Order: sequence, then structure tokens, then C-alpha cells
Amino acid sequence: MSSTAWESAAADKRARLQKSIPEEWKIKSPIEGPAIDVPDQLSVLSPSEMKITNSSAMELVVQLANGTLKSVDVTLAFCKRAALAYQLVNCVHEFFPELALAQARDLDRYFETHKKPVGPLHGLPISLKDQLRVKGTETCMGYISGLGIPDTDDSVLVALLRKAGAVFYVKTSVPQTLMVCETVNNIIGRTVNPRNPNLSCGGSSGGEGAMVGMRGGVIGVGTDIGGSIRIPSAFNSLYGIRPSHGRLPYAGMKNSMEGQETVHSVVGPMAHSAADVRLFLRSVLKQEPWQYDSKVIPLPWRDSEENIIQTKITAKDLNLAFYDFDGVVRPHPPILRGVEVVRSALEKSGHSVTPWSPYKHAFGVDLINKIYAADGSTDVYKHINASGEPAIPNIKDLLNPDLAKADVNEIWDMQLQKWQYQREYLDKWREWEEQTGKELDAIIAPVAPTAAIRHNQFRYYGYASIFNLLDLTSVVVPVTFADKTVDHKAGDYQPVNDIDRAVHAEYEPEVYHGAPVAVQIIGRRLSEERTLAIAEYIGGLLGH
Amino acid sequence: MSSTAWESAAADKRARLQKSIPEEWKIKSPIEGPAIDVPDQLSVLSPSEMKITNSSAMELVVQLANGTLKSVDVTLAFCKRAALAYQLVNCVHEFFPELALAQARDLDRYFETHKKPVGPLHGLPISLKDQLRVKGTETCMGYISGLGIPDTDDSVLVALLRKAGAVFYVKTSVPQTLMVCETVNNIIGRTVNPRNPNLSCGGSSGGEGAMVGMRGGVIGVGTDIGGSIRIPSAFNSLYGIRPSHGRLPYAGMKNSMEGQETVHSVVGPMAHSAADVRLFLRSVLKQEPWQYDSKVIPLPWRDSEENIIQTKITAKDLNLAFYDFDGVVRPHPPILRGVEVVRSALEKSGHSVTPWSPYKHAFGVDLINKIYAADGSTDVYKHINASGEPAIPNIKDLLNPDLAKADVNEIWDMQLQKWQYQREYLDKWREWEEQTGKELDAIIAPVAPTAAIRHNQFRYYGYASIFNLLDLTSVVVPVTFADKTVDHKAGDYQPVNDIDRAVHAEYEPEVYHGAPVAVQIIGRRLSEERTLAIAEYIGGLLGH
Repeated sequence: MSSTAWESAAADKRARLQKSIPEEWKIKSPIEGPAIDVPDQLSVLSPSEMKITNSSAMELVVQLANGTLKSVDVTLAFCKRAALAYQLVNCVHEFFPELALAQARDLDRYFETHKKPVGPLHGLPISLKDQLRVKGTETCMGYISGLGIPDTDDSVLVALLRKAGAVFYVKTSVPQTLMVCETVNNIIGRTVNPRNPNLSCGGSSGGEGAMVGMRGGVIGVGTDIGGSIRIPSAFNSLYGIRPSHGRLPYAGMKNSMEGQETVHSVVGPMAHSAADVRLFLRSVLKQEPWQYDSKVIPLPWRDSEENIIQTKITAKDLNLAFYDFDGVVRPHPPILRGVEVVRSALEKSGHSVTPWSPYKHAFGVDLINKIYAADGSTDVYKHINASGEPAIPNIKDLLNPDLAKADVNEIWDMQLQKWQYQREYLDKWREWEEQTGKELDAIIAPVAPTAAIRHNQFRYYGYASIFNLLDLTSVVVPVTFADKTVDHKAGDYQPVNDIDRAVHAEYEPEVYHGAPVAVQIIGRRLSEERTLAIAEYIGGLLGH
Repeated sequence: MSSTAWESAAADKRARLQKSIPEEWKIKSPIEGPAIDVPDQLSVLSPSEMKITNSSAMELVVQLANGTLKSVDVTLAFCKRAALAYQLVNCVHEFFPELALAQARDLDRYFETHKKPVGPLHGLPISLKDQLRVKGTETCMGYISGLGIPDTDDSVLVALLRKAGAVFYVKTSVPQTLMVCETVNNIIGRTVNPRNPNLSCGGSSGGEGAMVGMRGGVIGVGTDIGGSIRIPSAFNSLYGIRPSHGRLPYAGMKNSMEGQETVHSVVGPMAHSAADVRLFLRSVLKQEPWQYDSKVIPLPWRDSEENIIQTKITAKDLNLAFYDFDGVVRPHPPILRGVEVVRSALEKSGHSVTPWSPYKHAFGVDLINKIYAADGSTDVYKHINASGEPAIPNIKDLLNPDLAKADVNEIWDMQLQKWQYQREYLDKWREWEEQTGKELDAIIAPVAPTAAIRHNQFRYYGYASIFNLLDLTSVVVPVTFADKTVDHKAGDYQPVNDIDRAVHAEYEPEVYHGAPVAVQIIGRRLSEERTLAIAEYIGGLLGH
């Protein structure tokens, strides 16, 4: 396409998006204050619709399953609030309230006829990252070249959620390529943080973070190959899980670098509570996704694993480790404080929290960066060049098109190094247990070195990506907010390398004031039940 | 190395092997008849040692655990019989009875002191393919360049078997590169079939097949990336399991093409009964291998899964499918008869066995062959060229050093095709279930198109390798033996392609008379408990 051609394809998409919003849901005049507070100040949603959208998914599925709520009302409420979110923070790639309402009406009819729900998510709207395919909508994945091609099939996860009773109404924005942790592309521009437009919503599931943050969705589906679920969860004060590879079905989703299996992207939910995250996982696993996607391990949700953690909690016998500095990039003061808040809350509650020595994180982060760049960016530039659009700045920095492709034997060597490193990390985990005589239940760590970051300043993904390389289960727990009155600049810090220096220099208490701060809870591989139970308990200790 | 140098390295290895056999275990004069019958005709083993080596592992572990048998006696018996096997069929790369007897004495002392076994395999000798590392022995993997380097660590599986009480005494022969299903290399030459020296023992775990076939081992450990456990099991009338990837620990083993993860090699046991196979799997999983190898899924042995099959067996409600021709290469008459024997036995017992249409096997076999050759044989030729030894003929045919390497994006495309094909196969499995309204418990199929084959005639691995690509659990069940009086040549068959023609032409009733015939029982991914239970039941129906 010529420069005019891709620009007009983008303009056409924006016009179609605008058109998908009914007139009566449009914000007519600008409103002061953070986007997150705006829906309350408008009358687009009725009081009962506001109540619905402020509910948890757990509350909604109970009422949908007993007939107290109709899917069409719940769906309409979320469609309206999603439309507001779109207008306020620019977090939408596809919006299809009519399809959604038709689906909701079908579900309501089913309920009327059969007097029972179709499945555990009966009538519940679920928001989707623009990688999941929904029959009849398009999946652009942030590339101009992806526009205008309606999908003919659901992704496996979408099909199973549909079987479980979920309703689809919106697909949320992603950065061009998916490979960065902010959300900007040449189609809709930038998605911003609902709490502060100068801050990032995170990425690559950034539209999802913003949408669920705005309560335009109650549960959102993201993906994570280097932090893309966890960082938007952290930046929007949400719970989010990066399950281990093989727990949830990825089949039929669109992706960058499709077929790359050295480090797998995984799919997982983001929500306002651990209980809603669990509802999603249980509901999907109940559909036996391993019958549809060969990569899914036949492992149903294990209550027995949750019970082990509940017993430990009751006995005040959780054994945790923590770190606040991975040895590569020192986090900003709000993040250091966030880890300390969690550590001391656990300690006060009688559990054991001892320091963890991050093992060779610099090596691991370097290795995963080489894996991301293994094809010399051939695949992402294929998608970019297909339309003639320019690469977004973050991509220009990260994925140099002049990079050499790795040779097959180099790829195999990277895979061997990955396995070796994973095994060494297991050794460290076991050594901790041998030394203490206790089972190590989880590790508490930062998700990113900063709270929700200023645009174009995200330099170091290593806090998140190291656990993609290790394939450990990780659950994000919101902790607090940056506070200029306590999170002072650490003026005397001596940076240990250039990225550390740049990240350190980026901190300004005034700029970051109010930005969400989270931690991640890291469990063993495929420990979703246990790790989520620990995350839920920690959230409870923190009062949310 | 010069040609003299590699030849003398090989001669040195053979001399060291010869020296490892005590004089009194040596066969002084040639003995008539098949190797498998020779130990009975000699007095190297005492009657009680013959009895021990003719026992099942299940019988032995009970007696070792209650003190009726001492490990030193059991170990000595198997060392002697392994020494005979070595001399008769040339199936050994490393033989270390002294290390083994020292280990056995330690275990006996432990038992005397503590009056209990160290673990579920207390005192039981286990034979290992020459890919597994045992501290203090060498792992050559069929390459001259691997000789003379003692290992400093156990492989994870060896370490866990050791914890479970197993004793190690021998490492068995493999073909140069491991990538062929016969067993020949430039170090010890060729390993032959214990029933007939003109026939192959299979490969690449061919030494293991021959050793356990000779009862020089009661349980042997093999590996399988394209049939390497299943083919030697079939060719030696043994049970053998190819577990799905991620069930057993492969970490710390030597391999060809290390780091290649598009199709994983897996490790698994070979034995004379399904019960012994189960003993091995249970004993290893009890050691929680996922704590040591990041690729192992945290999935203990599930009795509940076995019970589901037991219930179906009792209710005469197994639902099976079968095929005897994959559409690419038609099996020889003994194999077609083998499938029919199993089918009719099941049907007579009241279970349902319906035809299975092999789905795109030609495509799948072609894809996995491309994956094997993805690095243009760089890795295997690196090992071959390191010593200057020539490639064995099978390798010269299979892995052309002039092959082009695949590009990274081509590898990703193969991985995408693999995943797509796996999903389509799942769809077929589900369609079968939807059409019949029954759960499909397993598929019965040939392991190879021929019974134990004449040397250098093995042309088509597709019956085995298709399930490596699909990563389905497969268990080999011995069925019968080729019989010239019933397995007549099918003179009127019109071959469908060149390989089919060559395989068809290879059959001679006289030549193959007495060669073992087996089938494989194919279950879903990670269905080891269920599939083994079905295999055991079928073996029982056949009277073994």
C-alpha cells in the first residue's frame, strides 16, 4: 500500500469503530478528572447498569444462573460502559454490541425454556484481547495489514467460553507486533491509563487492562510472552494470571511469530479479584480444552491443591521468599515499597517470608531477548511491510530489521540453554527447601521496575519475562499506589548499568503519584490452583 | 583422527568391553541354536540364578523388599546373563558388574540395618540404553568421538531410579546417531536379534531390546523419537511404552540434535509384562521428577485413570478402533494377521472394535522426516566427523550431509503445521466419539510394516513416527510370531508407491518365520495409566 493507502485503511477502521457506538452512548462534551471516574458522572448507564458493572463476575454468574439477572441487561450494561471506556482511553479494536445482544437474548431464551444456565459463565460478557478470533469480527493484532478480514471461526478458547455461556462484545487494543509492553499502533494510536492519560496502560494486553480497569469488562482475556498479561494487570490495579504453558488453549488465536515454540505465549484472565480469575479458569477447564487443543495438558482444576494452601494459611504456615531487586535494574521507590508492604503483611500474619536470591536473571533476560529476536524480526516486518505502515518507535528500538537470523543449530542451543537454566532454577528452589526443611510455596517479586510508566519510557521487561523463560505460574496482586509523600527519589543510588541508570533517572514522585503498584506471586510450573490461592490470601491481607 | 586412529579407538573400546567380562562368564565354545535359548544350555548361571533372571520385576521387588532375596544375588544373576547376552548378540556398550555389586551390597546393608527397602525398586537391576549417564561410566551413543570420557553425573532419571533402589550394571548398544531403527555402529558393529541373527533387534534402543529379550535385564530403559522404544520392543516380543512428552525426566541424558524441541525424544521402559512397565512408571513418578526436570509435568500416577479402564473391562465396554494399513506402506502378512488376532480377541470378549481411518499419515510422516532433517544433519555429522569415522549405511541414506538447513521461519512453519495436524487428529478422535456416542479408549495399529526385519532392509518408520509427531501415548503388546505356514506372500498386491513396492518385495515367508509380531495401543496424550491398562488386558487375552 502507498502511505496514503495504509493511512486511509486506518482512518476507515477508526470510522467503522466510531460508527459501532450508538449515538446515545457517546460522550458529548469533555469531562474533567481521570477517565476512571467519568462513567459515574454520566447518565449513559442507569443506576442498575452501574451496579451491574461494579459487580464481580462471581456475583453476576450467581444472579444470571438463578434468573435474578438477564444476560441481555448485563450485556447491555457492559456494552455501554465499554463504549465509554473506548471514548475515554482509546482501548478498542472491535466493538459489536449487536452480535452480543443477540447472543444474550439466545441465552435468556435458553434459560426461560430450560430453567437452567447453559454453563458456568451463563450470560456473562467477557472482553477479549484482539488476538482471539470471534466468528464474524476481525483480528488485526495492531497491524494495518490485519484490517478488513472477518474471521470465519472462533479461537478454541472463545468457542469453549461460548459453550460455558460467555457473551462477546468487544476486542481490545494491542501494540503493533504485540511484542512491547505499551499499547500503541498506527490504527487507533495510543491507549492510555484510565487513572492518568500521561501514564501507560501497559501492554501488550493493554487495551484489556484499560477496559477491565474501567469496568467496561468484568473479566478480560490477555496473553503473555514477556509480561503482557501481568504488566497491564499491574498498571491497572487488577489481578491477572500467567498460567504455565499448556494449561489453557491458545489454538486458533492469531499471533506474531506464529509457530515459535522456544518460549510460548500463554493466554489468561485479568479481573478485579482472584475469585473472578478462578471462576474463569475453572469454567474453561470444565470444558476439557485438551480435547480441542493438543498443547493443553489434561489437568482439570484441582481443589485438592487449593486445599493444601488453605490448610497452610489456617496454620499460619505459608513459607514464602521475596526479592525487590533482580540484580539488573533497581525498581523505583513505589515498587520497593510495594514488595515491603506485602512482606510485612505476611510476616505480621505469622507466615515466614525470607529473602530470595534471584538466580542469574541477567543471563535469563538476555537469553529470552535473543529468542524474541531469533528470526531477525522477519515475521513482524512481514506484517508491517504488508501495508507499508511504519514500525512504532518501541519496535524500531527493540526489533532491529538488520538483525541476523539465528541458525537452526543456534536455536537448538538456545533451547538447550533455556532447559539448563530452568533446571538450575529448580535446583535453587529445592536447595531453599532443603535448607529450611519447608516447602517453598511461592516467591514475591516486582512485575516491572516501575509503577504504570510514562509513555515511551518502558525499557526493561526482565522482571516479567524471566518467568516466561522459566514457565512458572505467576499471579499479579494489586498492592498500592505511588505516593509522592512517601516515595522519595533515592538520590544516592549508584546504577549498575546503563538501563538501570535510565530507569533510575526516569523516576519523579510528582509524575508517578497515583500510579498503581503491584507484585507478582510466583509458584512452580502448573501450580495455578496453589498460586492463585496464595495471591487471593495476600490480596485479602491488603484489604482488597 | 586418522582412519587408523578411530579404528584403534574402537578396537580399544572392544578390548575394554572384553576385559569387563570375568573369565568364568565367558562362552568357551560356540553353541548351536538361537541365542535366546543358549543361557539354559550353559552353567554360567546357577539354577537359582536362572530362576531369578526368569522372574518378573514385580516378583523380584517383592522378594527384595521382604528379605527373601538379596540384591547382591539378583545383581550377580543379571550381570552373568547380561554377559552372555553381550557375547551372543553383541548388545553392550558398557558393562560394570563391580560398580553394580558394590551398589547391591550397600543396599543389602541398608536393608539389614533398617529392615526395610530404600524405595520401590530396592535392589533391582535395571538395564540402560547408552544415552543415560551413570557417574563413572561412559556414554558414547554410538559415536567413536564419545568414547573414553567418563560421566561425572547421573542423568536425572538414573539419579531418581537410584533413589528408588535400582542397581545399574550395563549400558546397551545403539546405532550411530540414534536416528535409525536398527542397531549398528563403528565401535562394536551390529547387534542382532536373539531369536535369529539374520534379523534385526530393532533400534535405536536395539541393544536394550536384545538385552531384555535375552533376560539379561528385567526392565530396560529406552528412548523414542521415531519408534526407538517401540520397534525394539516389537522385534523382541516385549512390552514397551512411549509415554507422552513431559511424563518422564529426560534431563541430563546425552542425545543427538540436543536442544531440538520440535519433536521431543522421550524416555520409557521395556519389559516382559505390562505390570513391570507399570512398576517402573509408578516408581519413577513417586520420586516427583518434576522437582528435578523442568520439562516434566507434575502429574503423579493416577490410579483413578486405571480404574476407569478396569470398570470398562468388567462391563465389556471398551471402545476401540483399529487399522492395519496407514495408506502409505502395506504391512507384511504376519503384521496384518497380528492386528486381526488382537481385533478378534477383543471382539470375542465382548468389546467394540471398529475400523479407524488413518488421517493424513503420509503428510505427517513427511513432516516429521523434514523435522529430523531440519539442520541439514549438521549435528550428527559434527559427531561423526569429530573422529573421522564413516557414517553407517542407514545414515548415509537417511541424513544426506548436502541437505539444506531449514531457515528459522521454516522451522516455525513446521511447528505450526505440527500443531495444526495434532488438532485435526483430535478432531477426528472427537468425531469418532460424537458418531458412536462412546469414548474412544484406544487405537490398535502396527508398530512397523514388518516383523523383526532383515538387516539393512528397514525403509519406513511411519507406523511408529506418526505418534511421535502427534505425541500420543503408545504401548507395544507382543502378539505372535511370523509363521510361514499361514503368512503367505500376497502376490496380487499392487503397491501404491516406491517404498511400498520395496517393502512388499522384501517379504519371504521362509526368511521371516519365527520373527516376533506386535501391535501398538495408542491412547490420548498423557494417558499412560489408561493405555497401559488396555495393553495389559489385551496381552492377557492373548495368553501372556
